[in-house]
Amino acid sequence: MNPQPALVLTNGHLRDINAKTCHGLLRGSDRFTVLAVIDGKHAGSDAGSVLDGQERGIPVYESVESFFRSPPKEEPRVLVVGVAFPGGKLPDSARGDIGDALRRGLGVISGLHQLIGDDEEFSQLAQQHGVDLVDIRRPPSVSDLSFWNGSIYQAKAKRVAVLGTDCAIGKRTTCRFLLEACRTQGLATEMIYTGQTGWMQGYPHGLILDSLPNDFVSGELERAVVACDRELSPELILIEGQSALRNPSGPCGSELLLSTAAHGAILQHAPGRTFFVDQDPFDHRLPSAEKEVALILAYGVPVLAVTLHEEGMEPEALEGYRAHLEDKLGLPVVRPLVEGVGRILPTLRALL
Amino acid sequence: MNPQPALVLTNGHLRDINAKTCHGLLRGSDRFTVLAVIDGKHAGSDAGSVLDGQERGIPVYESVESFFRSPPKEEPRVLVVGVAFPGGKLPDSARGDIGDALRRGLGVISGLHQLIGDDEEFSQLAQQHGVDLVDIRRPPSVSDLSFWNGSIYQAKAKRVAVLGTDCAIGKRTTCRFLLEACRTQGLATEMIYTGQTGWMQGYPHGLILDSLPNDFVSGELERAVVACDRELSPELILIEGQSALRNPSGPCGSELLLSTAAHGAILQHAPGRTFFVDQDPFDHRLPSAEKEVALILAYGVPVLAVTLHEEGMEPEALEGYRAHLEDKLGLPVVRPLVEGVGRILPTLRALL
Repeated sequence: MNPQPALVLTNGHLRDINAKTCHGLLRGSDRFTVLAVIDGKHAGSDAGSVLDGQERGIPVYESVESFFRSPPKEEPRVLVVGVAFPGGKLPDSARGDIGDALRRGLGVISGLHQLIGDDEEFSQLAQQHGVDLVDIRRPPSVSDLSFWNGSIYQAKAKRVAVLGTDCAIGKRTTCRFLLEACRTQGLATEMIYTGQTGWMQGYPHGLILDSLPNDFVSGELERAVVACDRELSPELILIEGQSALRNPSGPCGSELLLSTAAHGAILQHAPGRTFFVDQDPFDHRLPSAEKEVALILAYGVPVLAVTLHEEGMEPEALEGYRAHLEDKLGLPVVRPLVEGVGRILPTLRALL
Repeated sequence: MNPQPALVLTNGHLRDINAKTCHGLLRGSDRFTVLAVIDGKHAGSDAGSVLDGQERGIPVYESVESFFRSPPKEEPRVLVVGVAFPGGKLPDSARGDIGDALRRGLGVISGLHQLIGDDEEFSQLAQQHGVDLVDIRRPPSVSDLSFWNGSIYQAKAKRVAVLGTDCAIGKRTTCRFLLEACRTQGLATEMIYTGQTGWMQGYPHGLILDSLPNDFVSGELERAVVACDRELSPELILIEGQSALRNPSGPCGSELLLSTAAHGAILQHAPGRTFFVDQDPFDHRLPSAEKEVALILAYGVPVLAVTLHEEGMEPEALEGYRAHLEDKLGLPVVRPLVEGVGRILPTLRALL
């Protein structure tokens, strides 16, 4: 895959979890090379500094037009909408930059539920300038989709699902850390993406789970795992989780455990987070790691490790919690952003 | 709702669980009056006798043409495709009857994933004869769909989900029995349908869960329950289950428990069934009722009763199992087809 030079639009959200697609792209993509981020609120900063304090040499511009004010070193080919707007719909304030990108001859790639390819203004502009509007959430036609058929039982690689106790809690990042750690240690490992960011990061196998007709989720998941197993013959396949088993706004996880016949699960948790994202008005609290581990076990899948998000806790308190939980569960409990995920590797090796 | 006189096509499957949409219609519908079933294999029988040995005065004809050979007492208005073909696709052997129905001026209603409205031959025929092709599984456009927003916490009615340990295990029938029993005893009760058969039976609130984009399942479920609560002010809302929590071909249930903030669950089980439907080649066995109850409890929802399907067990053995399970769980365990569901009513009353 030759990465395409890209601008990424976050429209004021660069620092929020809404921009997690952009965050994923900043952490690394085989599909795009990020030249700059477009975000009026953070213009002038380095995008990496805004994300996690680590400079990445990717500047933030106020607008597409301000990016082009001085001739760019490398010409961008596409604008990626790198933010999930609340409700899945494009706010008017983002239309200007998308229009300008099209007028500059850039294709536009979007993972919004509201399909930009169906927008009259944008389609006309795209046609005039000979570029593409790509909606990665446009569901494939039913005739191209697969039902679950049990072919998973022929797959040779071991499957491990990386679940979390909430959405936007770091499942994909932990999954990527695990992938890199396994490969570094010589384990032939692949990752199945299940969301739009994974697609944008350029993993070869996966699906955009949340825009599929519900009846085909299990079959498409199985198809992706089986294709990965056949084509790349890995020893281990990591499956990126979505949402959380208990999230009432869209519970997810049982299909990842059952339809892939997973051999194990890794659970990402944020002990410093009180409420499910956006659910504080309902006093809807995150489960404890122990309760979530019990739920995964009730599905018959062993939990191999717990990984912790640093959010909302002082390092010392978090370290105390970590040690306590490790003791209680008898499982590796690690802080990926602080210590990496190396301590989980022996457990993964034992599985193979 | 004025029921439409209908023919129901089962194409040789009248006796199989594939025809469960037809079975639901034979058991009762406010949307359609079934005049006859079209099924080459069972032509000449009474449809009710084929279903469960109870005559219902609904004849089975070999084909649409054979139905019209003698002038019908009542003119049918539509042909309902009353069977889920394996893989969701229409076999060639069913095309003749659909074409003939259209030529006779009948509309056609289908719940197949393969949309008959997109079939060139059928659309031409429908246009020529001025009738409609209705695909009830055609997903609404994203702009008409709702995300989950927590409005469920304002609903006043208690919610009870009727889950099962497998698909095609009698969840909807038990749900209908419960609805009738509650109403008979003066409990203002409504049912939320979640599949195509429920739509065809004419319940006013619900959704066709399996054809929705996955991200909108929870929101549409919440919307249906909240609308039912607001418009009809029932004391109790029953929610029809789909598939099963542990079915790898498409697990379902957590959204029914969590997104509706269910106050309780009733579990339909078939102790005489060994394997999940169509999963005997994988040796994939149904969980025990005890294990499934534990899984529902792990989601934080109390189980109120277990209901049993008679399949695959002698009445005496089943009765022994029933008494044993009732004792073990300390919950009402009933056989709806034999004794009705009256014994569950006190538990439901206690909830209100």
